[in-house]
Amino acid sequence: MPFKRYCIGNVFRGERAQKGRYREFTQCDFDFIGTRSIGADAEIVQVIYQTLRHLGVEHFTIHLNNRKIFNGLMESLGAEAQTIEVLRIIDKIDKIGRESVCEELQAKTSLSSENIVMLLDFIAQRQQGSALEFLHKLESYKKLNATLTDGVNELVALCELLEPLIPQEFYQINLSIARGLGYYTGIIYETTLDDLPSLGSVCSGGRYDNLTQNFSNDSLSGVGASIGLDRMLAGLEELGLMRSSANVANALLIPLQNLQYGYFVAQNLRELGLKIEVYPEIVKPKKSFNYANAKGYKYVIVLGEEEQAKQTYTLKDMESGEQRNHLKLESLVECLRSSGT
Amino acid sequence: MPFKRYCIGNVFRGERAQKGRYREFTQCDFDFIGTRSIGADAEIVQVIYQTLRHLGVEHFTIHLNNRKIFNGLMESLGAEAQTIEVLRIIDKIDKIGRESVCEELQAKTSLSSENIVMLLDFIAQRQQGSALEFLHKLESYKKLNATLTDGVNELVALCELLEPLIPQEFYQINLSIARGLGYYTGIIYETTLDDLPSLGSVCSGGRYDNLTQNFSNDSLSGVGASIGLDRMLAGLEELGLMRSSANVANALLIPLQNLQYGYFVAQNLRELGLKIEVYPEIVKPKKSFNYANAKGYKYVIVLGEEEQAKQTYTLKDMESGEQRNHLKLESLVECLRSSGT
Repeated sequence: MPFKRYCIGNVFRGERAQKGRYREFTQCDFDFIGTRSIGADAEIVQVIYQTLRHLGVEHFTIHLNNRKIFNGLMESLGAEAQTIEVLRIIDKIDKIGRESVCEELQAKTSLSSENIVMLLDFIAQRQQGSALEFLHKLESYKKLNATLTDGVNELVALCELLEPLIPQEFYQINLSIARGLGYYTGIIYETTLDDLPSLGSVCSGGRYDNLTQNFSNDSLSGVGASIGLDRMLAGLEELGLMRSSANVANALLIPLQNLQYGYFVAQNLRELGLKIEVYPEIVKPKKSFNYANAKGYKYVIVLGEEEQAKQTYTLKDMESGEQRNHLKLESLVECLRSSGT
Repeated sequence: MPFKRYCIGNVFRGERAQKGRYREFTQCDFDFIGTRSIGADAEIVQVIYQTLRHLGVEHFTIHLNNRKIFNGLMESLGAEAQTIEVLRIIDKIDKIGRESVCEELQAKTSLSSENIVMLLDFIAQRQQGSALEFLHKLESYKKLNATLTDGVNELVALCELLEPLIPQEFYQINLSIARGLGYYTGIIYETTLDDLPSLGSVCSGGRYDNLTQNFSNDSLSGVGASIGLDRMLAGLEELGLMRSSANVANALLIPLQNLQYGYFVAQNLRELGLKIEVYPEIVKPKKSFNYANAKGYKYVIVLGEEEQAKQTYTLKDMESGEQRNHLKLESLVECLRSSGT
């Protein structure tokens, strides 16, 4: 300990299946278990940030909150037992509107109208300026109780760690996110794509202090997040970031008369680190060249009778149409390597 | 077309679950669809060979057969309609013995005792010498019918392609393998680990000419194989080839007093291409150094007050105990890179 893990695989949720929301789906998880250090929370944010950047997403926001802040507020109202019920109702605000949420809170909880307005106003606050500046405004709440103090202090510690690591426009405090009502206990995350806000969160998570108690006598605090793969792919597709690579090879090798020699040459080139696809049949060149074009190959290596006899290679650039004949192996390899395809 | 694909994922079999043989399991598939060229069959064998070599297996055998050979034999006996039933019975030979197989064939098929002996003797032939030499001995069967001719010729073509690509000890003709009675139509493969013959085949496959007709009006001949991941892992474990790597990082960075500075330095080192784990808490050095030892780190970077003030780095070699102080960034990076950990 501490222990880090990641896993990409099928997971299950015990909910009624809905359109596009199935009981079995693919998730990319990463967790950091066995430390209460805010450093671990910061590392999870780093992984979210780096992953989205690597996927080519340029505009996204990692929303940060701490469950202890709302818990502390409820505690200050003497209503901590109703926290989850209240959050469950508030969570519907985007769907049913603030009015209906107020009504439902009045009907189903013991909160006064005044306190309902206070809570809704509190979580409606939006960050202006930096995350640390926004958190500074929450300092006054810390006097209410230790839970609130912890909640604000942990977010401050997190943002101090993040400041030199991640450009500020990629993360912000968002007091309205809740997530995993039943198990998250501390800092929580959601990630939205700025150009696709309606998609919802593509990567969410948080700290769970008690979750492992379901499975172990040891209390192991952990923090983790996961990418919903289907939603992420849908988002990348809509943003035009799904680069379809028709092939991953450097060149197509077309044997004109001897398949065996073609595979032999391909193996030699592969051993030199090149990626070579062999056209697997002896066919009219028109057919194999059409295939090369359809798959977007820049280079085709042609091996005919003369090439085999003289141990030379013909390299055709499918974009310029230029053809180089009588290449020696070294020149062929150099051409393919320098092209960087 | 032709179309290549690979997939690692969960697959299902419609059989009664047995111990260690579940209805859902993980398989690594690779297929080459849309060409009847034996080149495609050879590429599948290349993938099997390269995969096992990459996994570190030094002694294994890819068994090659062609369904057309046994089909042709049955055809020559006028018993082609019973081929699958006969193969199903013969397949039990390792479990119930040759005697019982003979009895069952006599009871359940129309084959004469003489023909049963002929068939069992035929598939019991073992390759001596090279695959091509063994196939040469089967030449005389080609006169029986076109199916047998195709079967032998395809294996000859395959082995001619393989000869310059794969050392001979890694593949052999084995007339007794059957596989996928319902769907394979041509060349078929099994792969056994020479040091673990009882494990069974870790990678099997074959050519299917008609399988896609279940799903498409186009007849697409394909060839493919798959690795049963669970069995392969069990084999690798038994062979001692499961290298457990406790960590994948070049060094553990231990911040002695400032977590923020620790993460900042780690990010700089990562941007230079190094893999760095940060110990995520400020603790007594004994605890974090114990962690470094337990995870098998060769190098620990220590960042204390002095290091931060002077922007230098302390690097400890956990194997030799040697400690280098006051390193500049370039020297630190050079040490870590040259160590190749």
